[in-house]
Amino acid sequence: MEQQIAPLARLAEQFGKLPGIGRKSAQRLAYFTLNMPPEEAKAFADAIVNARNTVRRCDVCCDLTDHELCAVCRGAKRDGTMICVVEDSRDVMAIERTREYKGLYHVLHGVISPLNGIGPEVLCVKELLRRFEDGLVREVIMATNPTVEGEATAMYLSRLLKPLGVTVSRLAYGVPVGADLEYADEVTLARALEGRRAL
Amino acid sequence: MEQQIAPLARLAEQFGKLPGIGRKSAQRLAYFTLNMPPEEAKAFADAIVNARNTVRRCDVCCDLTDHELCAVCRGAKRDGTMICVVEDSRDVMAIERTREYKGLYHVLHGVISPLNGIGPEVLCVKELLRRFEDGLVREVIMATNPTVEGEATAMYLSRLLKPLGVTVSRLAYGVPVGADLEYADEVTLARALEGRRAL
Repeated sequence: MEQQIAPLARLAEQFGKLPGIGRKSAQRLAYFTLNMPPEEAKAFADAIVNARNTVRRCDVCCDLTDHELCAVCRGAKRDGTMICVVEDSRDVMAIERTREYKGLYHVLHGVISPLNGIGPEVLCVKELLRRFEDGLVREVIMATNPTVEGEATAMYLSRLLKPLGVTVSRLAYGVPVGADLEYADEVTLARALEGRRAL
Repeated sequence: MEQQIAPLARLAEQFGKLPGIGRKSAQRLAYFTLNMPPEEAKAFADAIVNARNTVRRCDVCCDLTDHELCAVCRGAKRDGTMICVVEDSRDVMAIERTREYKGLYHVLHGVISPLNGIGPEVLCVKELLRRFEDGLVREVIMATNPTVEGEATAMYLSRLLKPLGVTVSRLAYGVPVGADLEYADEVTLARALEGRRAL
């Protein structure tokens, strides 16, 4: 039965390729799409093609943008002496939401992960190094995720950057605001003690 | 930030309209789509438009199909004296998977639900009644879901159909095969006792 309505099966197959969407969900989404008004289904399809074709990487920081330069790199009010290195575009958004950081970003589009065959040449590392040629940047904040791979990537990059004479820092580790000490894992708690600050 | 990459925001918004996809998931799916090869993104978009434009309701049973008649109604080997009434196309597939039923189907595309403003006129009820005009059908099996609305719809339809001289039956209630009696709810268990059969 399922295979006999070919366009429906094809659509379910496409939904099934998305992350976190299993076979059942894919089918449910396909049925839902069939019940959309035709112009909405068209708008959905157009949004996919349009996003795929117009969104590209910023020439400077590799963040996603639909211009040549992303909004941060275009912004005149940003502090050009600081670069915050993150794993992907969503991390840029997370840091922007804090409204605390006024410098520039650099998006690596991944982390070094030898087990998955991801070396520094796959990431936007040479684009990062190019940004130190004019000597304007003075500090780099490593804001990769606090995971083994994120850690290793930060270490690798700091070893590349320090000889260039820039200060390299790392996000502080500690207990998350609003969390319960009782439930904090020992590694986090040890780092919080280690990084304690005078009141 | 998020709003500045318009095509990306539009795509995330479209994903967010799908059932069970929240704001965060929609964003994740939008990012995933951006990383697809362009021809795959195109294939995804085409599958949506294609499914929406070619899949329609069968002229006889209202099941979904990309022909004038669905595969079951076209099938010469099906028993034309029996109609199984279900809520939607996925229920047809579920019953087909049993390989036990050889009759025809009728898909209502919903259930009567006064609270949501869904009356019988919204469902494929007049298409169902039309199928009794030639007097070939002798039995109707109500296979709407065992919910309050499914029950009410089955009752409503059986009252319409009985005067036409057809036998109307309902799926048996009981404990699901492989289930644990300890965890069966009392209503199901009561129905299972009530519907007990000689061994």
